[in-house]
Amino acid sequence: MKSTMDTACPGARPDAMIRAEDALGAFMLDGIPLARAMAISVGAHDGESLTLHAPLGPNINDKGCAFGGSLASVMTLAGWGLVKLAADARSIACEIYVQDTLVRYLAPVWEDFHATAHLTHGDTLAGFFEALTTRGKGRVRVRSVVPLADGSAAATLDARFVALAKR
Amino acid sequence: MKSTMDTACPGARPDAMIRAEDALGAFMLDGIPLARAMAISVGAHDGESLTLHAPLGPNINDKGCAFGGSLASVMTLAGWGLVKLAADARSIACEIYVQDTLVRYLAPVWEDFHATAHLTHGDTLAGFFEALTTRGKGRVRVRSVVPLADGSAAATLDARFVALAKR
Repeated sequence: MKSTMDTACPGARPDAMIRAEDALGAFMLDGIPLARAMAISVGAHDGESLTLHAPLGPNINDKGCAFGGSLASVMTLAGWGLVKLAADARSIACEIYVQDTLVRYLAPVWEDFHATAHLTHGDTLAGFFEALTTRGKGRVRVRSVVPLADGSAAATLDARFVALAKR
Repeated sequence: MKSTMDTACPGARPDAMIRAEDALGAFMLDGIPLARAMAISVGAHDGESLTLHAPLGPNINDKGCAFGGSLASVMTLAGWGLVKLAADARSIACEIYVQDTLVRYLAPVWEDFHATAHLTHGDTLAGFFEALTTRGKGRVRVRSVVPLADGSAAATLDARFVALAKR
């Protein structure tokens, strides 16, 4: 399911936003072989959160549930994608790097899964992009969660990303 | 390069140790599709540390350097493999899970890389296996590092693993 970014970009056409999300998916699958191996797809996006989906099959571990490296990778990419879509929507050219991540594995995942990323409470895209455009460097914190069917968290990620403006 | 576990298992034959490491590699590649996608191979092992290797090619990101998810996955698997080899050498049947990880991405990696895992200072395999065999559950902390050619760290992982005895 894909949604528009009406809130973040009130003047933008919905079809342009859908293309941005499709472009993100293609960018990840083309540029990151492991994203292709994990069969990641882009799901819901409303400007403030981004969901990535992954099937269990290519992401299992020796126990038959989701491999921790896959959970961490999908949660990291959800955070990275959230920041990238926000930069692209503002036509701000930058490279976005993950700086550090704290991952908690809380429960095994026995089915296809998804990770949803939000900015960490207290951080704003406005503050991030102001630092990026005025000082050439911005930092932002993201929390990603892989939920179970009952809504509880199977895994969480708290990450810091840094973006460097392209000259 | 593979080494024996003489220190940890003074009575063990070197060829049996080599088979244990080969078995670990086959176990990971057979049981974890993402390990296969990352083309991970088992390197040096002396009972107190384990090194896993990965080529850059299947592990690049959109910038052409190593994908953070690959670095985190290889560092996590190095820690998991270190604990698994130690359990296998003692014929202790258990399932080993990663509980949480803190990953710091310090510098980009532009070439084939490896991750070496050690127990965190202060933790011992003796204490871990005593808890596992007497209480059915053991916890151990591991630090993994991906070094650059100059010896500095490109990425570090501090992880906690929990092992549950199989009944």
